[in-house]
Amino acid sequence: MSQQHNRRNGRDQRRPRLPLRLVPLGGLGEIGKNMMAVEYGDDIVIIDAGLMFPDEEMLGVDLVIPDTSYLNDKLDRIRGIFITHGHEDHIGALPYVLPRLGFPPVYSLQLTLGLIGVKLREHRLLDLATLNLVDPAMTIKAGQFTVGFVRVNHSIPDAMALVLRTPAGVLVHTGDYKFDYTPVDQPPADISGLARLGEEGVLVLCGDSTRVESPGFTQSERVLNATFDEIFAHAEGRILIATFASLISRVQQVVNAAEKHGRKISLVGRSMVNNAQMAIELGYLRVPAGMLIRAEDIDHVPAKELAIICTGSQGEPTSALTRIANGDHRLVQIQTGDTVVLSSTPIVGNERAVSHNIDNLIKLGANVLYQGKMQVHVSGHGSREEVKLMLALLRPRYVVPVHGEYRMLAEHARLAVEMGVPPENVVIGQDGDIIEVSPDTGVEIVDHMPYGNVYVDGLGVGDIGQVVLRDRRLLSSDGVIVVVVTVDSDTGELAAGLDIISRGFVYERESEGLLEAARAVVERAISRHTQQRGHADWNFIKNKIRDSLSEFVYQKIKRRPMILPVVVEV
Amino acid sequence: MSQQHNRRNGRDQRRPRLPLRLVPLGGLGEIGKNMMAVEYGDDIVIIDAGLMFPDEEMLGVDLVIPDTSYLNDKLDRIRGIFITHGHEDHIGALPYVLPRLGFPPVYSLQLTLGLIGVKLREHRLLDLATLNLVDPAMTIKAGQFTVGFVRVNHSIPDAMALVLRTPAGVLVHTGDYKFDYTPVDQPPADISGLARLGEEGVLVLCGDSTRVESPGFTQSERVLNATFDEIFAHAEGRILIATFASLISRVQQVVNAAEKHGRKISLVGRSMVNNAQMAIELGYLRVPAGMLIRAEDIDHVPAKELAIICTGSQGEPTSALTRIANGDHRLVQIQTGDTVVLSSTPIVGNERAVSHNIDNLIKLGANVLYQGKMQVHVSGHGSREEVKLMLALLRPRYVVPVHGEYRMLAEHARLAVEMGVPPENVVIGQDGDIIEVSPDTGVEIVDHMPYGNVYVDGLGVGDIGQVVLRDRRLLSSDGVIVVVVTVDSDTGELAAGLDIISRGFVYERESEGLLEAARAVVERAISRHTQQRGHADWNFIKNKIRDSLSEFVYQKIKRRPMILPVVVEV
Repeated sequence: MSQQHNRRNGRDQRRPRLPLRLVPLGGLGEIGKNMMAVEYGDDIVIIDAGLMFPDEEMLGVDLVIPDTSYLNDKLDRIRGIFITHGHEDHIGALPYVLPRLGFPPVYSLQLTLGLIGVKLREHRLLDLATLNLVDPAMTIKAGQFTVGFVRVNHSIPDAMALVLRTPAGVLVHTGDYKFDYTPVDQPPADISGLARLGEEGVLVLCGDSTRVESPGFTQSERVLNATFDEIFAHAEGRILIATFASLISRVQQVVNAAEKHGRKISLVGRSMVNNAQMAIELGYLRVPAGMLIRAEDIDHVPAKELAIICTGSQGEPTSALTRIANGDHRLVQIQTGDTVVLSSTPIVGNERAVSHNIDNLIKLGANVLYQGKMQVHVSGHGSREEVKLMLALLRPRYVVPVHGEYRMLAEHARLAVEMGVPPENVVIGQDGDIIEVSPDTGVEIVDHMPYGNVYVDGLGVGDIGQVVLRDRRLLSSDGVIVVVVTVDSDTGELAAGLDIISRGFVYERESEGLLEAARAVVERAISRHTQQRGHADWNFIKNKIRDSLSEFVYQKIKRRPMILPVVVEV
Repeated sequence: MSQQHNRRNGRDQRRPRLPLRLVPLGGLGEIGKNMMAVEYGDDIVIIDAGLMFPDEEMLGVDLVIPDTSYLNDKLDRIRGIFITHGHEDHIGALPYVLPRLGFPPVYSLQLTLGLIGVKLREHRLLDLATLNLVDPAMTIKAGQFTVGFVRVNHSIPDAMALVLRTPAGVLVHTGDYKFDYTPVDQPPADISGLARLGEEGVLVLCGDSTRVESPGFTQSERVLNATFDEIFAHAEGRILIATFASLISRVQQVVNAAEKHGRKISLVGRSMVNNAQMAIELGYLRVPAGMLIRAEDIDHVPAKELAIICTGSQGEPTSALTRIANGDHRLVQIQTGDTVVLSSTPIVGNERAVSHNIDNLIKLGANVLYQGKMQVHVSGHGSREEVKLMLALLRPRYVVPVHGEYRMLAEHARLAVEMGVPPENVVIGQDGDIIEVSPDTGVEIVDHMPYGNVYVDGLGVGDIGQVVLRDRRLLSSDGVIVVVVTVDSDTGELAAGLDIISRGFVYERESEGLLEAARAVVERAISRHTQQRGHADWNFIKNKIRDSLSEFVYQKIKRRPMILPVVVEV
């Protein structure tokens, strides 16, 4: 009741201000799955709901999404999900998170909403979701929050910083940003708007830390115009450009270069086709009439008149470019003289896959251009001087760095202190921390809730935990040995034979001796214990089988396969 | 007989020259496991025998070594293994390869030989091997080969290019090299010697391609002196420096800095201790008396007077630095104020592990310095201009780039052509290619032998093949389901119960419904087929169980666990 009362009187200046509570649900201490819950009193506003691709430890996992269990008992307090921009690490978890959160309303700009729509349609969730179109001039009431938007630059149009006004003060969350004074297809970041916010007074800044380790300024997207111009001017054969399907601005630059140099464009890769189509419909991607041709028709176009834009710049195993590099794409085969451009840099962990693709493409006769060999990519994230500029414009009282590995958050924090923010006003948080901030009491990590990655594997969301992953790790490193023992339930002696089956352990045909010896070890273990104990304790005997076989195998070959004893009583 | 004759008359100028045959057994199309066989007539000389660390596709594999099966029927023709320098990717496979090749004599300079000795002793092979000490002034007769050595620079002393003189002409194999005019602990590369070789006439150059993609010159090792000086001058607490145990020159630099700034040195990590000890004994590492203290004693030394040199700069899971970063090293715990220096750059594929270590060290309160934040590493490999310098000095007639991913070999080839080598005189080879080169017929890939990675897993060398790895991949991605069916051999009907066990598939306790349903699917599959076919074909029924369960599981949860049906007849 008192909370109800509190809420109704949110603007009552006589009431004591409550602290603002920030709960990072992803992206703090990692790159990806960005999500944050912000609470004021009874009201919760959520910023972004992104996904992360699994690292090599997460065996068999398709995607990683934020752990939203903190919100489980607070669903009725969620006033909305506000999305900063349409990249996977900011919207990709929505199909999984929305149902769990009871489909709260989603707010974002048009292109972002378009990309969310594509995604929800694929998951057959579009009808259940409430998508609200906003524009930077609007503010949205969400309980005691008033949410506004300030344009920033990124490698996709419609990227916004969010401004959460509350009775406790103003929180600014930058989303991903850089300051691009000459962007490709959008106005520059609203520097005056940010400066006005600084004058108004910003309580707390949650700022992007992704590229804080890079000195200087990130280059403008526009520098790539010259690159593409040069590539298109000199390529003798077809041009294939691989990039993220969501880098709509990059796709636009390629289209512009193709137009200038008289090439047609074909889009390859499901997400590239879907996203581009939507962006064309919404007017975010301008492709001259007749220029776009279907991938099925590329062989009818002379090599010098064709450019292909495809997915797979990160070496994803089932992506278009990886298939093309492996020579098993249905529609696109590399021809000698093709120029392939990888317009991205590998995300940490993808270096090897990207490198394999480059090698395979060169072997097939392509001229491959990639970052390091030629400037074919610029980052969408601001470098150190831009992080400083953001701090200088907003002059926040408190700083909570977001979006980055721990060392990046720490570096962002160091910069803030260097610029005059008192050290006690800066907090390096991690996923699951509960951070309270108020002009009265400062900023502090007040609690930490249990937080874990939520894994998506096939249709299972969150059912894969540490036990299953540990088993997969064991299985992956030395395989499995199944020992099937059939015993007479009266006498406790071996009835039918003893079956030993292994997979991923040794090549059975060439290791018959080893497996024979293993069989003898198991037989000995059983007979010793059935003699000792009668036909008693099968769990005990299973453990004996496991232990003695495990020891035998390790002695013999220094491997530790998983051993699964099965006892069948007849 | 004619070959015998031929050999005895190797220097007979009237006999037609035979082609020189190069068989890359590792390192062409990859970084690591460098090895090459060179044949002239009846004689074979081998250059290096290195290992490679497995990539994430090679599940459970400890090491990858060269496939030497080409040599299996040629053991009596091997005249020696010549080692360019003592890094793992050049000597690491010796313990596995030497026994397979019948322990041919090994030739190298002193430090290299010392490192090989450490390695062979660990494998209890030292007594079986013949290790021959050479120096750069010597030449070694090896059948019709006369092998000489030319000093180059690298991040380890005693790095040599090899000169193989044969009746067909001179082959120069650079090993790993850079041109360091101000090296730390060795003379500069023997440029005059290389120039003399160029005047004498080089038939074919096998040159390092590792860093050909980097423009300009690689910096001298000496630039790190300033870095270490600065770090040692400013660090308030202890200094930990992680680097490769085989970067003896780097270790020397740290020792020098420690001496200058009055710190004691402790070595942590088995290979660091072993290598340093050997290098000290041989006089390659100079540590002032009383400066070296045991890791057990570090807590008796004030923080400001201690520097620790440890392994683990690549984030290797069981290395000293990874244990320290995880807070579970036996002797070294991070203290607030420690400075940790990662004096290396991550090898492709190790980026994520290195990044985790950095984050964990920062969380523990360390100030972490790594490449990108500060120049704490220089490469041991020459950049593009050095590759050109080598080509310019040697002026080879034919070029076969070695040591590198395919794209690096291709770039090296491009440079050679740019410098005037006719394109038909350059060959981009890969592991397993058989390349013939002769002044009479040019250079050509004449054949390709079956070549595969040889995996070391525990004590097994080469017993892990594609079948086992494929099974491990299957097991790792969705786990395993074992179905044990006990049937009456007379009636063909289910006798005892039906056991379903899964590991790494779903968390069994939370998925009882799914496993119950799976059981029903299996029962149906069995009853349908035993009814149809009597108690007949168990393989057929196993396949039915596998197919129907696989389909059921995929429908339900879109996963594809390995399914192992076991039928026990009683």
